[in-house]
Amino acid sequence: MLPASLQKLIDELAKLPGIGPKTAQRLAMYLLKSPHSRIRPLGEALLSLKEGLSFCENCWNITDGDICKICSDPARDETKICVVEEVLDVLAIEKTGKYKGRYHVLHGVLSPIDGISADQLKIHELFERVKNDPEIKELVVATNPSLEGDATALYISKYLNRDDVQITRIARGLPIGADLEYADAATLGKALLNRTGY
Amino acid sequence: MLPASLQKLIDELAKLPGIGPKTAQRLAMYLLKSPHSRIRPLGEALLSLKEGLSFCENCWNITDGDICKICSDPARDETKICVVEEVLDVLAIEKTGKYKGRYHVLHGVLSPIDGISADQLKIHELFERVKNDPEIKELVVATNPSLEGDATALYISKYLNRDDVQITRIARGLPIGADLEYADAATLGKALLNRTGY
Repeated sequence: MLPASLQKLIDELAKLPGIGPKTAQRLAMYLLKSPHSRIRPLGEALLSLKEGLSFCENCWNITDGDICKICSDPARDETKICVVEEVLDVLAIEKTGKYKGRYHVLHGVLSPIDGISADQLKIHELFERVKNDPEIKELVVATNPSLEGDATALYISKYLNRDDVQITRIARGLPIGADLEYADAATLGKALLNRTGY
Repeated sequence: MLPASLQKLIDELAKLPGIGPKTAQRLAMYLLKSPHSRIRPLGEALLSLKEGLSFCENCWNITDGDICKICSDPARDETKICVVEEVLDVLAIEKTGKYKGRYHVLHGVLSPIDGISADQLKIHELFERVKNDPEIKELVVATNPSLEGDATALYISKYLNRDDVQITRIARGLPIGADLEYADAATLGKALLNRTGY
């Protein structure tokens, strides 16, 4: 019933994760009513997205050069590496302003159910990096506090072949603004076990 | 922190309605990991969206010709016009399979608060169309059952200058699968008033 070009846009939008057919219709109608100057930048950003983008040879963060901005920043503490699952986790940690070291992006977590083993992640690259750089003193493992994230953290702590590198895990506990009454038992238990002094 | 081309895509996605900065980030990362063959059709669909698209001269539905597919279909009942707010409403009604007449898309509803008067809608075009076509016998007003939709329906019924054209309004009542206990009083009241016989 709709013109072909509009239907094509709806079909393509509906393929995106979290966007169903109704949302795709509404987005397409919104774009149709927008001026050309609104639509063109989005179309061009999509077509040129991958141009010049690659992963940092050092930490596997996304970059438009060979080495990412964080790895090439001399002001960064090179004794610390924060291990994260995804590129967006780097952004989230950077936003806190509480970490001045470097990163290592695993691009996933160990998940036997989904058939994801260490070979499909950047874990061996992490081990190599730690082995070849005697400056590294601490590995802050910031994978998600999920079953897979915990298993990946455990795997790293077990197979990292450097005794002089301290391996730490980001703290588990109640998020700020939480209500004790509604906290799950595992989180509350961790919050009690890991209580800190003043 | 992110490469410019990726950040640009995130910024453009975040301008879309219903897509916040976090969703935009996640969509951009998904697209980045997708193959070129997945991204290009979306980019091209956006860039070519408006090419050849216009509004039907007769009913103001979207079309890639001068006259839309429904208006140019001789099998359609030309004595009925269904008046809807938006192009997507035509799709919704077509999907029911219960209506074989033609349409008229108003492109909005009367809304004094938002400064939208009859001049900004296709209401005068509707009146002209009805005036010039003696075949038309019924106007099915299918604007939304909201304050603005009802006001627009009332406006049309009041100012349409043809006594031989019947004006009807789509029924209000309980949606299928609803629970009487949780229905609002206005809807339940309408359902009682507009009860139908067997």
